[in-house]
Amino acid sequence: MKIALDAMGGDYAPAATVDGAVETVREYDDLEVILFGDESQLKKELKGKKYPSHCIHIRHTSQIIGMHESPVSALRKKKDSSIRRAVDAVKLKEADAVVSAGNSGVAMATALFVLGTSKGVDRPAIAAIMPTLKGLFVLIDAGANVDCKPENLLQFAVMGSAYCRTILHRQEPKVALLSIGEEDTKGNELTREAFKLLKEANINFTGNIEGKDVFSGEADVVVCDGFIGNVLLKTSEGLAEVIIKMLKREIEGQATGKLGYLLMKPALRNFKKKTDYAEYGGAPLLGINGTCIISHGRSSPRAIRNALRVAVELSRKKVHKIISEDIMGFHEKEKVFAKG
Amino acid sequence: MKIALDAMGGDYAPAATVDGAVETVREYDDLEVILFGDESQLKKELKGKKYPSHCIHIRHTSQIIGMHESPVSALRKKKDSSIRRAVDAVKLKEADAVVSAGNSGVAMATALFVLGTSKGVDRPAIAAIMPTLKGLFVLIDAGANVDCKPENLLQFAVMGSAYCRTILHRQEPKVALLSIGEEDTKGNELTREAFKLLKEANINFTGNIEGKDVFSGEADVVVCDGFIGNVLLKTSEGLAEVIIKMLKREIEGQATGKLGYLLMKPALRNFKKKTDYAEYGGAPLLGINGTCIISHGRSSPRAIRNALRVAVELSRKKVHKIISEDIMGFHEKEKVFAKG
Repeated sequence: MKIALDAMGGDYAPAATVDGAVETVREYDDLEVILFGDESQLKKELKGKKYPSHCIHIRHTSQIIGMHESPVSALRKKKDSSIRRAVDAVKLKEADAVVSAGNSGVAMATALFVLGTSKGVDRPAIAAIMPTLKGLFVLIDAGANVDCKPENLLQFAVMGSAYCRTILHRQEPKVALLSIGEEDTKGNELTREAFKLLKEANINFTGNIEGKDVFSGEADVVVCDGFIGNVLLKTSEGLAEVIIKMLKREIEGQATGKLGYLLMKPALRNFKKKTDYAEYGGAPLLGINGTCIISHGRSSPRAIRNALRVAVELSRKKVHKIISEDIMGFHEKEKVFAKG
Repeated sequence: MKIALDAMGGDYAPAATVDGAVETVREYDDLEVILFGDESQLKKELKGKKYPSHCIHIRHTSQIIGMHESPVSALRKKKDSSIRRAVDAVKLKEADAVVSAGNSGVAMATALFVLGTSKGVDRPAIAAIMPTLKGLFVLIDAGANVDCKPENLLQFAVMGSAYCRTILHRQEPKVALLSIGEEDTKGNELTREAFKLLKEANINFTGNIEGKDVFSGEADVVVCDGFIGNVLLKTSEGLAEVIIKMLKREIEGQATGKLGYLLMKPALRNFKKKTDYAEYGGAPLLGINGTCIISHGRSSPRAIRNALRVAVELSRKKVHKIISEDIMGFHEKEKVFAKG
């Protein structure tokens, strides 16, 4: 298996991307990582590191994409950027999947433009995995589509369900719609219409879920538009960090606190690991005709390693094909329904 | 000053509402609370409690509103419910403000229907106060309007700014628009249009704020539509609870953890107090022609006490009149602008 890595993408690239790639190929027997980026910088980063040399390849690219560059301008003018060439490699079947921690808007637009959507899918969506009291859940869409129609949310639900079944190994994932009340009638225009569609879909739809229940682990898949999904994802990340800081500050203000803190340190470390985005690797862009992982901009080597691991798993299980089958099965059912 | 309290509203009513009222009148010299609800139940709750008897009054109401009852049905059929009669009391100038922890949809619709909006305001909005690393901020709208236009968000910003100035005593509150990126162009259709309006408004607009920065205390007022505001409010509440539970579980799993936990308990308690909704009392429905506080459904006596305190403060400072002046000032400026 070969993974194309946008080695210039991310706040700590290329150091973090190269380190992540090196650590990953050491773990796997049959994995090759192709690094796309500035050859001299990549060679410098690789120098002195130990890894099976036939497992890491470099493809030189000459253009750089800024974190604030628009997708339109990048697609038009940066055909030799690391992200473009990495996605091209999947299209040309030189790689099985692509991973990028760079400008996520550009990465998504490039994947959509070059690879296209899976058959039957109208809009790809980002599926983020997040921790709860009881285990993990899938949040979809975590930021690909800022304005959605009810039909888009329906497809996100089908895709999220397929992803959860395949990757989190849940037989009949409980799919819930993010809203502001549990009753059918609660929500905004978008969610009220989407509710009706989800009720008829061939998934295990459990109804609306409120914000307060998202992290208690009631649902396996939480469906929402990409604007609210992105706000939820980032707010939660920010809030978890702030809570830890507030707790530390409280502890340090207490006479016996410092000792307590020392004793609690392993627990805090474990907790941080459980809630750390880097543990879950990147988030796949589902609905693309291929495997594409969007990683956090602040990706550490560990985050890159986990993103590569997710890419391998998705590619091995051909999740994009399963999604296409599920969506097409759904369209077939619709046709029968319309005829009947 | 007289406050009308919907004594039957909330999960723990009337026990919690009556206790909250009793505790409050003991603290204030010049406050009277009028309890609206079932007379026999309220008398039973008051029995044996010590308080200045001229400070608590009972007004009997005969109808009950369920937590899932629709506002339309309640407005039409429940004219002798505790919430309706409590709001009527403000309209009839028998009370200066109203507090309810009951069905919030019904409470908001009743306040809007009976009291109307302040001059110049199109849509009232809920302003919730939340904690950050640096202090408190105002989230507006926290759930009154599920579908909004850019103009609504502009008015929320003006109202939130007036509220923050008056109640949190900040001279020129920093007002930010909740979005998925800091640049002007990031966001959905609604926020991109609202951004343009906010830039021209007579407030201290600091641009977009991302979810990750909401709790770090960068903004004094965070503006968003009521759907996303409600999701954010409830998700944060739920996540804070889950994080505490996860931490406790981590600690209990460690050999030295139990001792650490004992030593840390005061810090955890302080932290919980800082993040507890009950500390901040209810959230005002701003833009109403009067003072109306919507309290959490799970309100404890302490939450009711704090909601009554907020009601007193808003009413004393005539925040609804300040808001009306600010909004009208804004409309005047618009006219001059249009003529110019």
